[in-house]
Amino acid sequence: MAGITTERIIALHAAYIRCIDRNELESWPDFFLDPCLYVVTSAENHRAGFEGGMIYADTRGMLTDRVMSLRDANVYENQSYRHIVGLPYVIRNGGEGTETETPFMVMRIMHDGKTDVFATGVYLDVVRAAGADLKFKKRVVVCDSSRIDTLLALPL
Amino acid sequence: MAGITTERIIALHAAYIRCIDRNELESWPDFFLDPCLYVVTSAENHRAGFEGGMIYADTRGMLTDRVMSLRDANVYENQSYRHIVGLPYVIRNGGEGTETETPFMVMRIMHDGKTDVFATGVYLDVVRAAGADLKFKKRVVVCDSSRIDTLLALPL
Amino acid sequence: MAGITTERIIALHAAYIRCIDRNELESWPDFFLDPCLYVVTSAENHRAGFEGGMIYADTRGMLTDRVMSLRDANVYENQSYRHIVGLPYVIRNGGEGTETETPFMVMRIMHDGKTDVFATGVYLDVVRAAGADLKFKKRVVVCDSSRIDTLLALPL
Repeated sequence: MAGITTERIIALHAAYIRCIDRNELESWPDFFLDPCLYVVTSAENHRAGFEGGMIYADTRGMLTDRVMSLRDANVYENQSYRHIVGLPYVIRNGGEGTETETPFMVMRIMHDGKTDVFATGVYLDVVRAAGADLKFKKRVVVCDSSRIDTLLALPL
Repeated sequence: MAGITTERIIALHAAYIRCIDRNELESWPDFFLDPCLYVVTSAENHRAGFEGGMIYADTRGMLTDRVMSLRDANVYENQSYRHIVGLPYVIRNGGEGTETETPFMVMRIMHDGKTDVFATGVYLDVVRAAGADLKFKKRVVVCDSSRIDTLLALPL
Repeated sequence: MAGITTERIIALHAAYIRCIDRNELESWPDFFLDPCLYVVTSAENHRAGFEGGMIYADTRGMLTDRVMSLRDANVYENQSYRHIVGLPYVIRNGGEGTETETPFMVMRIMHDGKTDVFATGVYLDVVRAAGADLKFKKRVVVCDSSRIDTLLALPL
C-alpha cells in the first residue's frame, strides 16, 4: 500500500469526531474495519503493558452493541460533548497500514451550560484504505486520567 | 469554482483566530464577503431550526458596527482570549463555495491569570475565493452552551 | 531556501509535543538548531517589548542543562501534561527561514485524575530545514497568563 497523505488522515479524524459530537452514534462503527481493535485504556495501564482496557472490542458488531447500550442508558440526555483533535503524528506510513498518534481533548457541556474537561489523551491508530475511504484497523484510546467512571459514557 | 485545498482552509482559520486573539478586531470584518451571513447561536436553538441567533449580521458594515460597540464597551481591558480550532471537516467542495464544519474552543484568561473555558462549539462555514484570498460567505457559530451572556463579549 | 509546506510544519509541531507529553525530554533539545533562541515569556512582557523571559536559552547545551535540572526536581512524578496545538499561521515562508505563529494549550492531569488548564498561549517560531528535518531556529513561547510559577515546570 502506498503512503496516505496527512490531508486524508486529517479528514478521517475530523469526520470521526463530527459523528460523535453530532450524536450520530449509529454511524460510528462504520469508521472501523471488521475485525478491528478498539480499546479505551488509561495511560497508567498502557505504560504497564496491559493489553486490555476499560472498553475492548474486536469486531464491528461489538461496537454496534456498545452504541445500543449507550442509547438504552440515555447518556446524552443531559450533556453534550465537544472533541478537539490535535495535529496527527505519523509514525509509519505504508505497508500494512499507516500508524499515527494524535492527541485529543473532550469537553463536556452540561445542560445548564457548565463546561468542563471530560478527557484528554492520545489516539494510537492504525489506519488502512478501504475502497475510497480510510478506516481504523486499530484505535487504542489512551486516556491521561485514570478516573475511569466518567470515561465510559460515550465513544472516544 | 474548483475545489479549495485543506491547506488553504487551514490557513484561513488560522488567520481568523489570530486576528481576534491579537485584538485586531478592526480587521475582522475583512474575513467576510459583502453581503455575508454571520450568526452566533446555541446548539439548542440551531437544533430547533431557529434561523436567527444572539448575534446576526448580513453585511460587512454590521460587523464593523459590532467592533465599534465592543471597543466602546472596553471588553478587552481585563481579560484575553485564546482560540483553538480543530481539524476542518469538508462537507462539500466546489460549485457555489466550500462548506465546512470545524470545532473550536475558546479559553478566557483573566487579568490575574485564572483561565477557564469560555466557549466550545462548531463553525458552520461557506467559504469562497475572492481574488487571492478565501473569505466567508457564511459563518454560523453554533455554541454548545446556552449561557448566552458570556458569548456576547467578542467575535467568535 | 524554498518555502516549507504546511504539512511539514504540522509534522514538526506534532513531533515536538509528542516528545514532551511522552516525557522523552532528553530528545527535546534535538528539535532546535545550535545556536538557537528559546524563550518562555508572558503576553504582558512580550507586548511591553521585553526581550528576555522567565526562561531564556540560546544554545542547545542550555536546553540540555534545563532538562537535567527538571529531572533532578522530579517534576513529572505526580502529574502529566497534554499539549494541544492549533492550526499554524504562516507569516513568512522562505528566505532565512519560515516564520509561523501557532496557538497552543496545555492541560495538566494530576495523579488523582483531576485535570485543569495549565497554560495557553502562542508559539512564535522561525523554522529552518536541517538535512531531512525541520528545526527551530527560534521559538518564543508567549503565555497568555502571567502566573509564572506554574510555567517553569516543563518545556512548553
